[in-house]
Amino acid sequence: MAVYTEVSLEDLESFLLQYDIGRALSYKGIAEGVENSNYLLQTDHGRFILTLYEKRVEAHDLPFFLNLMDHLAEKGLACPVPVHARDGKALKRLCGRPAAIISFLEGMCINRPTEKQCGQVGVTVARLHLAGLDYTGTRANALGLPHWRPLFDQCAAHADAVAPGLNHLIADELDFLESHWPPELAQGVIHADLFPDNVFFIDNVCSGIIDFYFACNDALAYDLAICINAWCFERGGEFNTTKARSLCRGYLSENPLPHADIEALPILCRGAALRFLLTRLYDWLNRIEGALVKPKDPTHYLERLRFHQKANSAASYGLT
Amino acid sequence: MAVYTEVSLEDLESFLLQYDIGRALSYKGIAEGVENSNYLLQTDHGRFILTLYEKRVEAHDLPFFLNLMDHLAEKGLACPVPVHARDGKALKRLCGRPAAIISFLEGMCINRPTEKQCGQVGVTVARLHLAGLDYTGTRANALGLPHWRPLFDQCAAHADAVAPGLNHLIADELDFLESHWPPELAQGVIHADLFPDNVFFIDNVCSGIIDFYFACNDALAYDLAICINAWCFERGGEFNTTKARSLCRGYLSENPLPHADIEALPILCRGAALRFLLTRLYDWLNRIEGALVKPKDPTHYLERLRFHQKANSAASYGLT
Repeated sequence: MAVYTEVSLEDLESFLLQYDIGRALSYKGIAEGVENSNYLLQTDHGRFILTLYEKRVEAHDLPFFLNLMDHLAEKGLACPVPVHARDGKALKRLCGRPAAIISFLEGMCINRPTEKQCGQVGVTVARLHLAGLDYTGTRANALGLPHWRPLFDQCAAHADAVAPGLNHLIADELDFLESHWPPELAQGVIHADLFPDNVFFIDNVCSGIIDFYFACNDALAYDLAICINAWCFERGGEFNTTKARSLCRGYLSENPLPHADIEALPILCRGAALRFLLTRLYDWLNRIEGALVKPKDPTHYLERLRFHQKANSAASYGLT
Repeated sequence: MAVYTEVSLEDLESFLLQYDIGRALSYKGIAEGVENSNYLLQTDHGRFILTLYEKRVEAHDLPFFLNLMDHLAEKGLACPVPVHARDGKALKRLCGRPAAIISFLEGMCINRPTEKQCGQVGVTVARLHLAGLDYTGTRANALGLPHWRPLFDQCAAHADAVAPGLNHLIADELDFLESHWPPELAQGVIHADLFPDNVFFIDNVCSGIIDFYFACNDALAYDLAICINAWCFERGGEFNTTKARSLCRGYLSENPLPHADIEALPILCRGAALRFLLTRLYDWLNRIEGALVKPKDPTHYLERLRFHQKANSAASYGLT
């Protein structure tokens, strides 16, 4: 939610000389994403997003993300695409940082998705997965199962200060997930962070998805499990089965996953809840007092994890 | 440089029902100004800035600012104008805060103004002053001379920790300014914060000015003194007489101030430097460690103050 690197007009104008997108008419730092600096740039050719990648993004991962956007857009998925400079390259440097210009995607995030919108999200995720099947880039999930224990080790000592008994609960959950994680799920490129702030709508119709900077190769059904966590709990913490059914049916109507993958949803949802519980817990414990970027309360994901622990089968998510 | 209040799509859409500016296609929180929350809003009618006024702005001052923009734009000055809702009102409420939709002004700030651009700024300030002469709204300068001592009283105890001898220097300067401030300067509506980030250029031509939230009634030549402080010092701290001459001549070509006002420039420049030294000192001493909004180093204005203390006459600013 911030601009970390200030780009002067002089810097911008010389940067734009490398591109064929006209001259700048305005640019505004926008409060989007916590990881990078983003500018909404207007030129006489149109609107663009200028992104400077800050230290939390690994520079060697950037070609994977940018090429993925190109690939998905070519397959017809509504997502931003990198603008290639005159030399053909999408990845450049600006103000000492890796930087790219990305096309502007119209649309707005919604706060309180309806059942119908959840269905559209399911359809969109499935189309993303199908479009990614022949993408040749690879990137391991840097926040997947093998990374949860090291992350927990950094938080364990202070976990109980956030919620009594949290240390024990996470330790037990990690033991369970490590020994029960399903080994043979259908794999592919997943978005891995498809929260409502990364999905755009216009007039209640999904107009596209953004922010591919967590995308990686992992189980497709795990991405669906992330979406269930992100879209199907109400503000008070209650699980909305109707929304989950709509989301999953939307997904399966486009990409009918193997039966075993569907039945793995309860454990995958537990994993997804633990992943966000752990990263939020880490950010919470390492927060800076008074900083403008407020870390999100990790305990919301504790509640979600507890819900999934009680789920017996895909039926718990409205599937029969 | 932040968005303090998050506006949901649902909030925005019901807010827009009060206006005739079409339906929202996108809106992005922008990192502009440290006082308010600003969104760049695109509708099918065009681009707008949606501003939510946060606590540092006095709500009872807002009609003065909004009506002033209307008045100045009507007189032909290039500045944003408030969009009036169907009921004729420009000031509304959104998310519990006073809010307004303002027209979008194209253009970009410059970091290193040229002599020619300083001249354009001078012309623009003069036109602003002339356009404001028949504005009927009034607002005292909340950061004018009578407010500097109370501000200093809140900083005095810790001033020397910022720069050795600062406490004494400010105390002496306050004594001097209070006893020598010229009593009969030409008055009018001044911008009072015309720094480079509030002046837009397109292709090196001044395309307009923004951010009227410090505007008030005060001495016109004091506004020029603020501009000299804001535009005519180089990054290394050196005063650029050529730029000052260009700025002042640009101003005087449009609005020939009385001789006494011009000769008062040294003391007015000292006052302007002290005003920014004091507010920056206050923000510096009251900063929050780790906060994203970094307070500006007050000592830059200490150097500027020292320069003005040595100025004997308007000739020090390139005027003859």
